[in-house]
Amino acid sequence: MGKNKMHTHRHYEEENEWGCGSWLEYTMVVVLASVLLLGSLALTLFWVIYYHNGFAWREDLSKQFNLHPVLMVAGFITFSGFSILLYRICRCCRRIYVKLLHTVFHALSIPCVAIGFMAVLDTHNLKRPEAIPNFYSLHSWIGLVTMGLFAIQFVVGFFSFLVLLCCEGATSAFRAALVPIHASFGLTTFMLAIAACVTGLTEKVIFTLGNSYSRMPEEGIIVNAIGMSLIALAILIGYILQRDEFRFRAHVLIRSGDL
Amino acid sequence: MGKNKMHTHRHYEEENEWGCGSWLEYTMVVVLASVLLLGSLALTLFWVIYYHNGFAWREDLSKQFNLHPVLMVAGFITFSGFSILLYRICRCCRRIYVKLLHTVFHALSIPCVAIGFMAVLDTHNLKRPEAIPNFYSLHSWIGLVTMGLFAIQFVVGFFSFLVLLCCEGATSAFRAALVPIHASFGLTTFMLAIAACVTGLTEKVIFTLGNSYSRMPEEGIIVNAIGMSLIALAILIGYILQRDEFRFRAHVLIRSGDL
Repeated sequence: MGKNKMHTHRHYEEENEWGCGSWLEYTMVVVLASVLLLGSLALTLFWVIYYHNGFAWREDLSKQFNLHPVLMVAGFITFSGFSILLYRICRCCRRIYVKLLHTVFHALSIPCVAIGFMAVLDTHNLKRPEAIPNFYSLHSWIGLVTMGLFAIQFVVGFFSFLVLLCCEGATSAFRAALVPIHASFGLTTFMLAIAACVTGLTEKVIFTLGNSYSRMPEEGIIVNAIGMSLIALAILIGYILQRDEFRFRAHVLIRSGDL
Repeated sequence: MGKNKMHTHRHYEEENEWGCGSWLEYTMVVVLASVLLLGSLALTLFWVIYYHNGFAWREDLSKQFNLHPVLMVAGFITFSGFSILLYRICRCCRRIYVKLLHTVFHALSIPCVAIGFMAVLDTHNLKRPEAIPNFYSLHSWIGLVTMGLFAIQFVVGFFSFLVLLCCEGATSAFRAALVPIHASFGLTTFMLAIAACVTGLTEKVIFTLGNSYSRMPEEGIIVNAIGMSLIALAILIGYILQRDEFRFRAHVLIRSGDL
């Protein structure tokens, strides 16, 4: 009860410190980031449904491939992006709830990435008369590195920031030391996911449109727009994470060992 | 003299605080980053000289194009990368010298980027029987955004951290507030440069090799290796910048108003 009171008090104090300009800036960047996170997924959905006839599983390989861009953007960009943003959006919940939501969002992106990965492997392996080789392109190599980093981040984060809470006092120094490393590698993983997406989009648009890409057909512009919304996200998420003012109550909770 | 003595003393104190492990880690990551910065440029040079017959200007358009990847990697990756790393490498110079070197390295990357940009415009515009359109691809759009951010960072950095030194006291609070923003956008610009490079490499390798790319010919592997060295740089530079221990003497110099 006493602890809660202190939190409420600090909360009130801190909110009062924020000027009108800070609130405006905070609202604008968080809203813009949310719009871009959902917008890039919506544009990808529009692209594959309108220009590539939607989805299927095995009965139509080209439609099965369509699952790949949509699920990868959903997992690596939309879910992961919101999972990162949560630490800035949830300004009035207890940190443990934010951490659990952060884990849930990242956990949701795992099936997306897994099914998106299987979809492209299937379309390569089942292609007739001849299977398409896997893992030859720069895009696939970047994708593999991104998935590896994502998996390491998830496992390390899960054990360090949730499981180790069982012996809270003894591990608080270790967990506090790990926070900036986890945060920095999280941002790097997000940036690599964007690099993987833009190389994938480039590959796909050249394979589909060939030389006509240079005449800027509608589909080319849509694909470029997806890529640019991802680039805008890279700039915006980088900016939001850097702004210490947007990081709510971290100093209070580090003190109370609630990392 | 007194100030110098204080610096030497703080320097000595801080070095003593670093354990053997920190020194080993610091040396390893800085050496590895330097090797990757030079290695990615060397690989790019090897690629265009060995597989695409080197350089020319206007008398041979395909050779003129070769200037584009080499100069862009030199400007946006090698020079910019070392310019960022300087703040970690120069652990015993006065901060003003580091800032001047940071400016010089970034200034050196300007002619590289400018000539690299002109080289690709020329090869597009002078192509016969028909000119190739400019700025249609996702790669070109990402490149334009990167150049824009780079230019803004350079101008803002130059005026804020060098020109405003003329009224040191009056502008110190403003300059101190700008440091994290400049640093964060600097890292983002570097990441976008890497995104521009990997999309460019993907474009070029598909236009050159076509379907044979999937059989992993030598050239494909070389291009992927260039891309992967850039991805490794993204991870490493992200890690180095995040490690506060590697940021030398910042607290001493913020106090002495030498920002």
